[in-house]
Amino acid sequence: MTAAPTAAAASKSFRTAGGRVFNFNAGPSILPEEVIKQIQEDIWNFRGSGYGILEHSHRAKFFDDLLAETFDAVRKAGEVPANFKILFMTGGATSQNYIVPMNLVTDRNTQVCDYLDTDYWSGRSIEDAKQAGFTTHAAFSGKDSKYTYIPTDAELKYSDPSKLAFVHMTSNNTIYGTEWFRDPAVPAGVPLVCDASSDIFSKPIDYSKYGLIYGGCQKNIGTTGATIVIIRDDLIERCDKSVPRMLQYRTMAKEESRPNTPPHFAIYTVCLMAKWITKQGGVAALAQKNKDKVAPIYKAIDESNGYYKGHSRPDSRSWMNITFRLGSEALEDKFLKEAAAAGLDGMKGHRATGGVRASTYNAFPAEGCRALAEFMREFQRKNG
Amino acid sequence: MTAAPTAAAASKSFRTAGGRVFNFNAGPSILPEEVIKQIQEDIWNFRGSGYGILEHSHRAKFFDDLLAETFDAVRKAGEVPANFKILFMTGGATSQNYIVPMNLVTDRNTQVCDYLDTDYWSGRSIEDAKQAGFTTHAAFSGKDSKYTYIPTDAELKYSDPSKLAFVHMTSNNTIYGTEWFRDPAVPAGVPLVCDASSDIFSKPIDYSKYGLIYGGCQKNIGTTGATIVIIRDDLIERCDKSVPRMLQYRTMAKEESRPNTPPHFAIYTVCLMAKWITKQGGVAALAQKNKDKVAPIYKAIDESNGYYKGHSRPDSRSWMNITFRLGSEALEDKFLKEAAAAGLDGMKGHRATGGVRASTYNAFPAEGCRALAEFMREFQRKNG
Repeated sequence: MTAAPTAAAASKSFRTAGGRVFNFNAGPSILPEEVIKQIQEDIWNFRGSGYGILEHSHRAKFFDDLLAETFDAVRKAGEVPANFKILFMTGGATSQNYIVPMNLVTDRNTQVCDYLDTDYWSGRSIEDAKQAGFTTHAAFSGKDSKYTYIPTDAELKYSDPSKLAFVHMTSNNTIYGTEWFRDPAVPAGVPLVCDASSDIFSKPIDYSKYGLIYGGCQKNIGTTGATIVIIRDDLIERCDKSVPRMLQYRTMAKEESRPNTPPHFAIYTVCLMAKWITKQGGVAALAQKNKDKVAPIYKAIDESNGYYKGHSRPDSRSWMNITFRLGSEALEDKFLKEAAAAGLDGMKGHRATGGVRASTYNAFPAEGCRALAEFMREFQRKNG
Repeated sequence: MTAAPTAAAASKSFRTAGGRVFNFNAGPSILPEEVIKQIQEDIWNFRGSGYGILEHSHRAKFFDDLLAETFDAVRKAGEVPANFKILFMTGGATSQNYIVPMNLVTDRNTQVCDYLDTDYWSGRSIEDAKQAGFTTHAAFSGKDSKYTYIPTDAELKYSDPSKLAFVHMTSNNTIYGTEWFRDPAVPAGVPLVCDASSDIFSKPIDYSKYGLIYGGCQKNIGTTGATIVIIRDDLIERCDKSVPRMLQYRTMAKEESRPNTPPHFAIYTVCLMAKWITKQGGVAALAQKNKDKVAPIYKAIDESNGYYKGHSRPDSRSWMNITFRLGSEALEDKFLKEAAAAGLDGMKGHRATGGVRASTYNAFPAEGCRALAEFMREFQRKNG
């Protein structure tokens, strides 16, 4: 099965080891080719059961084993400590915008939820919490500076700690291409909640700083359908029992993430990805790989004499999403079209920023990043 | 890729056309083998894009086209009229237990939600609505008669129609093995809501009788991860705007089911299944097939002189789940073990009923039903 992309207009055509196109999509996004091949086998006949994983009951032994294995594999890959519980929920990270306050705010009338607003998505978290009836405060807002950087602790202005239900941050900012490489200081005893949808398990996490970490699985650790929630034990039972049962973390914790039919195929995919991460040497090794692999792309920006303009301030540059613009929209269109024809696909920037966005999550190979850097230099040479 | 099941202890071994085991699981459950083969191809390279469907962005052209195609295919396969909108949500049918009242109850203090309690799952719907703060009333309860039958209209005792927000029913009862083959009468103007998780698109639906039909997709029309909601236009905007945005039907309708990253692989699978249903001749043809294919199993029960005791009253027998018991639990264990060894897998009854349950959804082939009937007769001969 060889890739047959649209006709290549460019002089050179880049392909993965498996002969496919390099997929720079922001998510759902690239999976390791060995993982895809495993899925191809398993959807026909899972572990000798005689039928495929898509068809397996979530209450029978094969899935009992798989689920236990997934929790173990995720704990190992993500180095999750024993005082945190791993949950699989649905509705995407966006649904956590109301589920987090529903579970962590114990008094809507007096408590405030603080947000570090570093991206479109953190802005969305604020809007959604407000819409669902919670009081919110932006302890930092990067909106006016167009979300170009990650703030210092001195820039964070929290609400009165006695009223604070939690502080929320977004660790990697997919749209603007900035990323947190340190943990923000928060008032003592206040849980720090992190939307890690786009960098979860791409680098080590210091769990002692966090109360809750969540993310969609479709970027770094799987595909769509499951939301991972990693929650500290003391927060599981915090919510009022009037919250709909299916939205309570306690239900998910108690029922091992299957109070009803869970998104079992998405969970299975996370299991494969967690094992793949461990096989790569774990999150510390992956972090080094992720950092190294994007260096050629940032170098191509920096050495372009302003031909490519990076959005992020250099000290805040993401290893997951590299965003830049060219001199005009027409030139950007040409860049994207020729890149796609050369086997470098999925780089159209988000509508909020325009331009180019190269997403380089865990499964994205270094060869693809080198290919993009080469393409960028060649494109500049021809169109400079 | 030939199935390699556990060692066959029985004299005869049954296999599907593709050489796999017959999978009688209650859900997630069997998919057509041609659909699985299509998925195997598409997860490597989807429609010549150069990468797989699991890796495709939900905001790019390939998925734009696929989503539009899915809505069309589902509308065609399910014969969904123009005044109903098709939505894909998450959280399974169980999450609709609170989402339905959140969207259809306009005054929690005065309105009542009526339920036709014909199964464990309808009982669960009542419990969940109550837990989430809604007033419920069972207009019928089959609990005392152990859920053995579908009531007549004369048995339904509704609340005062002026206070009724909706009437809820469960069209097929997976655990007890009964099924509605007519539409219950409800007070004029009151929307009838149907949990059709286990019989959706297995037979025609008279949409004029319903306001909202929903179901998990993992039994008759796909796999886990997506919940289908088919809602009449006038109900979409009924809910209060203080309901969390992601739980409002209006959000899903307005955003074409992707206000955020949707469960795109689950939706893709529904697309394949909808096309497969149409290829089978549509829901009317499938209904006839489904009815015909289970007849040999019910015949084996009826001709067993009480060796197999069906749970459902004959007039309420489901075409989707056939439930019966044998003389003792030890005999049931033997039956299940030997059946599995003979290639008839996944028939352990739900813990609420025990015994045997054979699930025979849309994709389950008639050969498998005939094989089970043959196995039942042979088992009785040997162990009678």
